[in-house]
Amino acid sequence: MEILKQRILKDGKGIGTAILKVDTFLNHQIDIDLMEQLGQEFYEHFKDKKVTKVLTIEASGIAIAAFVAKSFNVPLVFAKKVVSKNLEGEILTASVQSYTKGLIYLINVSKKFITKDDNILIIDDFLANGSALLGLAEIVKQGGANLVGAGIAIEKSFQPGRKRAEDAGIDVYSLACIESINDSDIKFKEN
Amino acid sequence: MEILKQRILKDGKGIGTAILKVDTFLNHQIDIDLMEQLGQEFYEHFKDKKVTKVLTIEASGIAIAAFVAKSFNVPLVFAKKVVSKNLEGEILTASVQSYTKGLIYLINVSKKFITKDDNILIIDDFLANGSALLGLAEIVKQGGANLVGAGIAIEKSFQPGRKRAEDAGIDVYSLACIESINDSDIKFKEN
Repeated sequence: MEILKQRILKDGKGIGTAILKVDTFLNHQIDIDLMEQLGQEFYEHFKDKKVTKVLTIEASGIAIAAFVAKSFNVPLVFAKKVVSKNLEGEILTASVQSYTKGLIYLINVSKKFITKDDNILIIDDFLANGSALLGLAEIVKQGGANLVGAGIAIEKSFQPGRKRAEDAGIDVYSLACIESINDSDIKFKEN
Repeated sequence: MEILKQRILKDGKGIGTAILKVDTFLNHQIDIDLMEQLGQEFYEHFKDKKVTKVLTIEASGIAIAAFVAKSFNVPLVFAKKVVSKNLEGEILTASVQSYTKGLIYLINVSKKFITKDDNILIIDDFLANGSALLGLAEIVKQGGANLVGAGIAIEKSFQPGRKRAEDAGIDVYSLACIESINDSDIKFKEN
């Protein structure tokens, strides 16, 4: 998606060979117009899949996923990283490793929101090692729902996430695939 | 806001005298149509305040705040509860106590997103003890920005949040004010 790639080149900041900061428009301060355009793009790609729900993980996936859900006119469900007192009843759970935050945590979704009648589209801001995506896919599976695919804003194609997702049979659609980062030199994969 | 009150009565679940679960439409599974309507309602109330940014806190405030930001056509900024490797540079920070989760945590916003030229509207899903709201207001103050007010979806009027916010000089606009919860018996405050 050209508009996202151009925005990454304009406002993104590469640090070393692994980190891409997009905090000015995607995951800390959020450009809402851009989110709407991402939502529409994911809708165009997955519109024939009879999506009944969009699933993401708190927190930085929520804004994008909200506009995807708007485009499909379906509810959004987000997996929680902490089980609060307000989360009760049967819970679907999977473990996720965060490399940027240096920890492993459980993600949780109330079972009532993921059912065998659902066609779930997973949305997230980044695909890097794939741990969050595989965790969300595990939750979809536990709920007995059908996973129609995963829409990712930015894929770090030099990390193993896509391979792991494809090996798990997940149809991944990424809007900007980063081939390499060398500080300010950010290269996209050829489509 | 009548539509939100009716939805709380229909789909909310009171537990004991303090907890109101709204996880089917507000803070776990999210009704996007409703979020748009809340966004529009907050816009109508604050539209003369020259809002330049909407500020919320991860995670359950993000979806509402995204549609408020859309109505105002301004960026959304969300405060983070964990400082990740991707958050660097000068950071504004405040401490927040979560009663539902039973912990105290720091919330963080990159200083570059809250400036003296900003008119900030804070948005959150709940106002109960007011700790999150006061923490966000503290961050606005640290950044030297102008706080135009706070838009809250559901206020637990039997808890001290509103009083604490008003004592701090914050203009609070809540869409549904709960006077009392007794399990399934949920009463709203008269307007």
